[in-house]
Amino acid sequence: MLGHYLEQVRQRHPLIHNITNYVTVNDCANILLACGGSPIMADDPEDAVEITAICGGLNLNIGTLNQRTIPAMLAAGKRARELGHPVVLDPVGAGASRLRTETALRLTEEVGPTVIRGNISEIKTLASGTGTTRGVDADVADQVTEETLDGAVAFAKAFAQRVGAVVAITGAIDIVTDGARAFCIRNGHPMMSAITGSGCQLSALTAAFVTANPHDPLEATAAAVCAMGLCGEIAHRRLTDRDGNASYRNYIIDAMYRLTPTVLEEGAKYAVR
Amino acid sequence: MLGHYLEQVRQRHPLIHNITNYVTVNDCANILLACGGSPIMADDPEDAVEITAICGGLNLNIGTLNQRTIPAMLAAGKRARELGHPVVLDPVGAGASRLRTETALRLTEEVGPTVIRGNISEIKTLASGTGTTRGVDADVADQVTEETLDGAVAFAKAFAQRVGAVVAITGAIDIVTDGARAFCIRNGHPMMSAITGSGCQLSALTAAFVTANPHDPLEATAAAVCAMGLCGEIAHRRLTDRDGNASYRNYIIDAMYRLTPTVLEEGAKYAVR
Amino acid sequence: MLGHYLEQVRQRHPLIHNITNYVTVNDCANILLACGGSPIMADDPEDAVEITAICGGLNLNIGTLNQRTIPAMLAAGKRARELGHPVVLDPVGAGASRLRTETALRLTEEVGPTVIRGNISEIKTLASGTGTTRGVDADVADQVTEETLDGAVAFAKAFAQRVGAVVAITGAIDIVTDGARAFCIRNGHPMMSAITGSGCQLSALTAAFVTANPHDPLEATAAAVCAMGLCGEIAHRRLTDRDGNASYRNYIIDAMYRLTPTVLEEGAKYAVR
Repeated sequence: MLGHYLEQVRQRHPLIHNITNYVTVNDCANILLACGGSPIMADDPEDAVEITAICGGLNLNIGTLNQRTIPAMLAAGKRARELGHPVVLDPVGAGASRLRTETALRLTEEVGPTVIRGNISEIKTLASGTGTTRGVDADVADQVTEETLDGAVAFAKAFAQRVGAVVAITGAIDIVTDGARAFCIRNGHPMMSAITGSGCQLSALTAAFVTANPHDPLEATAAAVCAMGLCGEIAHRRLTDRDGNASYRNYIIDAMYRLTPTVLEEGAKYAVR
Repeated sequence: MLGHYLEQVRQRHPLIHNITNYVTVNDCANILLACGGSPIMADDPEDAVEITAICGGLNLNIGTLNQRTIPAMLAAGKRARELGHPVVLDPVGAGASRLRTETALRLTEEVGPTVIRGNISEIKTLASGTGTTRGVDADVADQVTEETLDGAVAFAKAFAQRVGAVVAITGAIDIVTDGARAFCIRNGHPMMSAITGSGCQLSALTAAFVTANPHDPLEATAAAVCAMGLCGEIAHRRLTDRDGNASYRNYIIDAMYRLTPTVLEEGAKYAVR
Repeated sequence: MLGHYLEQVRQRHPLIHNITNYVTVNDCANILLACGGSPIMADDPEDAVEITAICGGLNLNIGTLNQRTIPAMLAAGKRARELGHPVVLDPVGAGASRLRTETALRLTEEVGPTVIRGNISEIKTLASGTGTTRGVDADVADQVTEETLDGAVAFAKAFAQRVGAVVAITGAIDIVTDGARAFCIRNGHPMMSAITGSGCQLSALTAAFVTANPHDPLEATAAAVCAMGLCGEIAHRRLTDRDGNASYRNYIIDAMYRLTPTVLEEGAKYAVR
């Protein structure tokens, strides 16, 4: 089933506007091209609103937010929603500082994202309005394991219902839910945490999938999460004993470029609850 | 003939100041180093004017322009021209938003670039003062093909004459003209559109070539366009069935690092009209 | 002996806050992950002070400084020192413009970095309060060679004593000194100057090493410098005749990911004076 959503991305070439951090922006652009989408970046408030109007979807990532990009994210986010475009919010580092927490909360409330994708600590911060995050990685105490999965699914569903968005909590086990159903996804490889921006790339990818599949945001998000994890697995099998995280980054994007709907269909590992 | 212009770059190591977007800035720096040039980036208005003075040439790219970088581009551009430095303008996304169109027009008028390099849609926007561009890619309707080449060459020549610059319109067939003569270049590979920033890299490269060959801006620009396309061909032959756009990006820069004047001489595919 | 300092990085996973340029920021993040550290970037003044408080160390790089990031660097730097966190200063381009020179001097005086790492021209600018630098590379006239080494060591020691910091001058021969002892390091490969940001990466790496080894800033810095140079050597041996500077960049980060304390121990080439 999930292969279909990739096929739509490859056929429709969604143009995705990204207001994102400057650490991983190049990787976000290349993963969008790899999946069949097309990236554009604009973060001056005046420019961002106009650029978003010519795009199909918007990806908001607060990774290196500042006083110029925050109003750009708010204005572009509202404009995108007026136009019926899907919006993905990546609350990078929510819980790590007041500015990040408050901005993530404001974007959630004032924009009303279609999808919110983050690690468990970031999503818990959004749900509670406060939090402590160890930088941009999830707290060990928060991590979703087989033991804590039931509780995490219940938490994710409740939060998705409350905010009216698809919520994707990614980690060792990923949870994607619209409040009614939850995909529990077991693709991916632990080494993905050794490259910068695998989460940022996934958010950009999700924007492409949701934009190309406007009637199925839940399934499209689950397909993006499975696709990213599967590419992490394929890329990992390619590593030689001299390759490290830089080559791994490249191989993941390469794998996305080569990924077919059939391979995604067969490689996706998920259960729906 | 074109090999000579690369040789000059490798001998003179031109120092190029880039005010460019943060999406592809790292690739621009590495392609400049690959060709034998040296990059420096400064985009605070105060800093940019001083930095441009110690450089040999300036590359202005409006990809992620904002209220800080626009005055920096104008001020550094004017200072570079006062000093007799070549200036390359890459009007990324002109036609996609008013801010981009207006900024590209202002830079064209107030700075007077030595070379303007863009896709056909961006250059048409500059020529007409208005336009509609699908993000940062050329509109399909605008694309230069064998059928539309005559008209496109005439258009490019007229625009080059009017603005007094070398104009490089890149796409499936590239046109480089100073208003009198036009190089029609058939190097490159379609997969180059699957990596972010191949155009941005070409503009940075052009700045290095024009700076190292100050008396031959037309030929130097044509050499840069041929070199980039040829590296796209060489890199494409290196791809395995597991490589995608991330490896392709690296292989293109690698190919530029290895490119010799002789290989460029023999591999350049162009006709002059 | 130096292997120990890498081991500490791998065990303690220091979280490093980077206020750095947008040219090489992705490489800085990946080299930090490669060595066992964890990166976070925040450069809005309000955000930066809070983010630095949750980190273990701070890396300040003035590469593309602007009116927003300068106050962020000053404020985060002071907060980090109040908290007893190590701070690394990379004065990229000091001597190339007044803004860079003045900012580097202010950061040196007002923050009091733990380590200052730059090329010889940048450090000479800091020492004299003025200077001329050819962009971001060292002037040929300044370069440290076997002939000029004695004088350079004496200069570095005197400067280190005056500013009360570990000073790392990197080039063909690297000098790392706390004013009393000096490590003269001969790791590395000339081709490292053909990739953008090898210096920026080293500064980020140094921050991780010094943060994980808080009582030995001199040895930790020397270990970081040896590790970076050694990875440059290992990566260079891996190059094929089609590889250039893009693959070399990736291979260096890969080598850091694979580097073991034993390999560092055996490969480090240094003498202490």
